[in-house]
Amino acid sequence: MKIKEIVTEILSKKKENGGVKQLYFVGCGGSLGALYPAKIFMEKESSNIKTGWFNSNEFVHSTPKDFGENSIIVLACHKGDTPETVKAAQLGKEKGAAVIILTWLEKSPIVEHGDYIIKYNFGDDKDVAGEKTMCALLIAVEVLNMVEGYENYDKFMDGVSRIDLIVNKAAKHVEKRALAFANEYKNDSVIYTMGSGSAYGAAYMESICIFMEMQWINSSSIHSGEFFHGPFEITDANIPFVVQISEGSTRPLDERALKFLKTYAKRIEVIDAKELGLSTIDPSVVDYFNHSLFNNVYPVYNKALAIEREHPLSTRRYMWKVEY
Amino acid sequence: MKIKEIVTEILSKKKENGGVKQLYFVGCGGSLGALYPAKIFMEKESSNIKTGWFNSNEFVHSTPKDFGENSIIVLACHKGDTPETVKAAQLGKEKGAAVIILTWLEKSPIVEHGDYIIKYNFGDDKDVAGEKTMCALLIAVEVLNMVEGYENYDKFMDGVSRIDLIVNKAAKHVEKRALAFANEYKNDSVIYTMGSGSAYGAAYMESICIFMEMQWINSSSIHSGEFFHGPFEITDANIPFVVQISEGSTRPLDERALKFLKTYAKRIEVIDAKELGLSTIDPSVVDYFNHSLFNNVYPVYNKALAIEREHPLSTRRYMWKVEY
Repeated sequence: MKIKEIVTEILSKKKENGGVKQLYFVGCGGSLGALYPAKIFMEKESSNIKTGWFNSNEFVHSTPKDFGENSIIVLACHKGDTPETVKAAQLGKEKGAAVIILTWLEKSPIVEHGDYIIKYNFGDDKDVAGEKTMCALLIAVEVLNMVEGYENYDKFMDGVSRIDLIVNKAAKHVEKRALAFANEYKNDSVIYTMGSGSAYGAAYMESICIFMEMQWINSSSIHSGEFFHGPFEITDANIPFVVQISEGSTRPLDERALKFLKTYAKRIEVIDAKELGLSTIDPSVVDYFNHSLFNNVYPVYNKALAIEREHPLSTRRYMWKVEY
Repeated sequence: MKIKEIVTEILSKKKENGGVKQLYFVGCGGSLGALYPAKIFMEKESSNIKTGWFNSNEFVHSTPKDFGENSIIVLACHKGDTPETVKAAQLGKEKGAAVIILTWLEKSPIVEHGDYIIKYNFGDDKDVAGEKTMCALLIAVEVLNMVEGYENYDKFMDGVSRIDLIVNKAAKHVEKRALAFANEYKNDSVIYTMGSGSAYGAAYMESICIFMEMQWINSSSIHSGEFFHGPFEITDANIPFVVQISEGSTRPLDERALKFLKTYAKRIEVIDAKELGLSTIDPSVVDYFNHSLFNNVYPVYNKALAIEREHPLSTRRYMWKVEY
């Protein structure tokens, strides 16, 4: 079933009981980060549908009181076996919510708890338009369009048709600078990421999944609007920052942070969505595509960094190895 | 005007135009962090009122489309002169929203842009019940109770009547361990904070306002439910964690993280809301009081740390000194 058909069926089924009033996005770590743009989309574009973006374990232990028959819950779970996310899916079934699961494997423990299973694209040669972030966004776009109407629907779909080519070109474009980045930062013990808008999700993922998890480098993802209200005091000539410059409405926030860093820091890696070709997407919808661009350009840097540091991205000391 | 009267008046004025449909919390840095529990309260307790928690500059540049005559915007601005927050208040006026400003000073640039000014308590001898975090929570509680009804209203108010005494006792209780903490961590270049639920706001504030801003120590606030999905791989015997153990629904998340740290880390500072007396507040509402407890216990640690490091909490290199 395609996403549009799934949403059509859910709305049809929910119609008699008052319709869809909540659209919740739930996951853990990178899977949660990947849902961030969809949450931002609903927060900004919808007038009447409540949204929320929750870590699975917090959602299970501290569930919104309205979660139930008028809710859609969208869960992301890569291999379908994250216990907290499986529990959140079970809770969705118990409460009568429509449960949509975004996952990579056909078969897994979570699958039986979903009303709808969407198998997303993943891996080096994937079509970015079918990635989990885009799947979650498309669910949000279809729900909004069918419930309230979405004036930029066609422009959004045009953006979807463009994102894969933009990403592929961008990934090639940064190859050389990724090698230089890896060489420059290979011995650092702290690297910050920075971003705004829907792309903050990509900054979060790079910080927790790559620097902390896969490279054991201390990190934090700083919101570029928050930077000037605390975090910027750690700025000096030695601390490295990876700065995302989004295209769209929050670009001035990122540019302001970059301007400061260019004056007071020395070690800055800039990833600029405009330079990387995102501006061919219509300004009315471009905000929501920044995350997918950054999140798919980072792997070029990450692979180079892992080689330079002789620390493969698959190395773990706790995950899959000890109980927790 | 008291908070209840303010909310009554707003709802009365908005009644003819469709009532209140959105309650947005907006600020920068520590002022934003202080609003976090109110956002969590609305997310969890309300069925029909949309909420959001936004950095002021992101709110101004990427405003939710429904922000307008049916909205209440609650802004926190300590001295009333943060330009981004002043702009957000102006935007509220332009759009016809009800603008409530939480601030410390009677007179400031932001005051003219507010429909209602709430001067909150601040400083060492304040009554915690009148702090900005509690003011924002009380606005949320009153709005919810008047619009949808809130079954735990009386229990919440009982909690408000207890929080100041709990905090005062707790602050005394940690005095000795704060000195030991300061001695132990005075030479560290990275300190993480961890928390969940509404108290994540306190972990965020401690990380960005104290460790990064006032002590120039690298830091990140890790959500204890997210810890196991990336961040925990940086755990080793040397990395320090300040771990908040909340009382209430998300306590199992914090306890799970602590159990892991007790096995694989060695340098852990535990701040436990149950040990510090928060359990005298009713379980149905206790979740929302964790933030105020932690946020008011931290200063005991922070003062000790500043003395031990000979780095006063007022030291800045950029804030108030350079243009940005």
